[in-house]
Amino acid sequence: MSIVVLGTVALDSIKTPAGLRKNLLGGSAAHFAMSANFFTKVHLAGVIGRDFPEQHIEFLKHRNINLDALTRQKGKTFKWQGEYKKEDLNTALTLNTELGVLASSFPVLSKQQLRMKNVFLANYAPDLQERFLKEIGSAQFVGLDTMNLWINTQVKSVKKLLKQVNIVIVNETEAKQLSGQNNLMAAAKFLYALGPQMVIIKKGEHGALFYSNTLTCILPAYPVENVVDPTGAGDTFAGGVMGYITKSRKLNASVLRRALGYGIIFSSFNVQDFGLKRTAVLETNDVRQRMAKFKELLRF
Amino acid sequence: MSIVVLGTVALDSIKTPAGLRKNLLGGSAAHFAMSANFFTKVHLAGVIGRDFPEQHIEFLKHRNINLDALTRQKGKTFKWQGEYKKEDLNTALTLNTELGVLASSFPVLSKQQLRMKNVFLANYAPDLQERFLKEIGSAQFVGLDTMNLWINTQVKSVKKLLKQVNIVIVNETEAKQLSGQNNLMAAAKFLYALGPQMVIIKKGEHGALFYSNTLTCILPAYPVENVVDPTGAGDTFAGGVMGYITKSRKLNASVLRRALGYGIIFSSFNVQDFGLKRTAVLETNDVRQRMAKFKELLRF
Repeated sequence: MSIVVLGTVALDSIKTPAGLRKNLLGGSAAHFAMSANFFTKVHLAGVIGRDFPEQHIEFLKHRNINLDALTRQKGKTFKWQGEYKKEDLNTALTLNTELGVLASSFPVLSKQQLRMKNVFLANYAPDLQERFLKEIGSAQFVGLDTMNLWINTQVKSVKKLLKQVNIVIVNETEAKQLSGQNNLMAAAKFLYALGPQMVIIKKGEHGALFYSNTLTCILPAYPVENVVDPTGAGDTFAGGVMGYITKSRKLNASVLRRALGYGIIFSSFNVQDFGLKRTAVLETNDVRQRMAKFKELLRF
Repeated sequence: MSIVVLGTVALDSIKTPAGLRKNLLGGSAAHFAMSANFFTKVHLAGVIGRDFPEQHIEFLKHRNINLDALTRQKGKTFKWQGEYKKEDLNTALTLNTELGVLASSFPVLSKQQLRMKNVFLANYAPDLQERFLKEIGSAQFVGLDTMNLWINTQVKSVKKLLKQVNIVIVNETEAKQLSGQNNLMAAAKFLYALGPQMVIIKKGEHGALFYSNTLTCILPAYPVENVVDPTGAGDTFAGGVMGYITKSRKLNASVLRRALGYGIIFSSFNVQDFGLKRTAVLETNDVRQRMAKFKELLRF
């Protein structure tokens, strides 16, 4: 089994209380791939510019990520510059965005990829997410993420997409915004009623909530004291969830609970260093150990 | 086994998106008593004025709460007037406070109460909390709550108290304020280092965190869709925790985990109606059923 993810591949410049890093490999698809990769073969669909460093290509290849649909175009790679303040490490302040090739081009899928069954639409313009989903006519299990920008500017397209996906994974603010509900359970039920069979609401340092017709599950976050850089935590979470579901090929309660747990564990590693630095050196044993500790924290 | 709680007994006027209620029986000691009462005999120590309605006395008596130290004084009962806005049901906006007898008097303990072993110091001026603790020389297990006002104005007294108690139960904002730490785990460890053997940080709709030398435990809140009035949720939580510990007479991990769970379950009932309305009619079976559902939500 394998999964194809549509998302951004970016060069991130990030300032946090722990320091400043420039032109790190980032983007929603890259973060997603780092965790999904632990469970299943990941095909990364995204666009990069002429300036995209060869070392990043090598890095992704060494992680065994399929790059057939990582499409290089004339122009510059998408760049994001952000900052996190000490008072609120949960909130990214965008200092600058240069869309580059993201504004004008779209990844080209191989024949093999056009027949894939598992798809994740990471944060991207909703019309392009829909186009991607149409191209892959064979898609059977589809996950969706979005962001406040699209909910503000293209809410109809986002809602149209919600009818076509199996699982939506959004954060607390997006869930409240999309549903108009301040209560998270009410927001989850509202999103569920818009179409998807499963709803996950990410609550950052407070964990995540799963809601479907047959299962409600709430898990706190794994406590991390040394939060260095939260960039990509939500995408890493989604990669853990979607990767584990793809590997399991089942959607029973115990698989879904564990998928949620893996999402939380992978994102807890992600925030412990800049960019992909921590997840890049993550070993199966690290994940297993932290998962065991997490279960221990929750036992009662 | 029994427990004595020092706290306020108030007449609350509360406005929430669900409506407006005037002169409800409230206060930290009253809310605490409603849940602790499920596990142990509660002695309520507080002051009330001449205007305190007889029906409230009858109500508390019928709940089997010992009122020997509910001291009636010349003057008016403490009154609190607050509002919760739809956008943020977690935050109480204080519209008016009339201290009344609270400003000038102190509860008088019976001889039996002066020999009690379990004590909870609900939110109260820290100097008076300390005075109360000194009076009960026999205290063996002491819990402490406080609030932002005392941390701002009498932080030395609060820190002095922390050295004398076994468990501190504060909310997220208070924990961050007291510790100067934005990270909750770091805040918990900081508070622990100030003296108490156990630290609980209440996270409102996101649950609670327990920290001690031997146990770390994190539980989400029980999801409640129909939040009507959050007043007293933290006190009801503390009552569940302290009540269960008092009943259990042990401090092993499984008792502490269950105490945390009970705190969360009782506070989830508290918010479902105004004042004490929901907890007043709570049956053992309601608690048992919700506890079972909560375990199910968390299983993975």
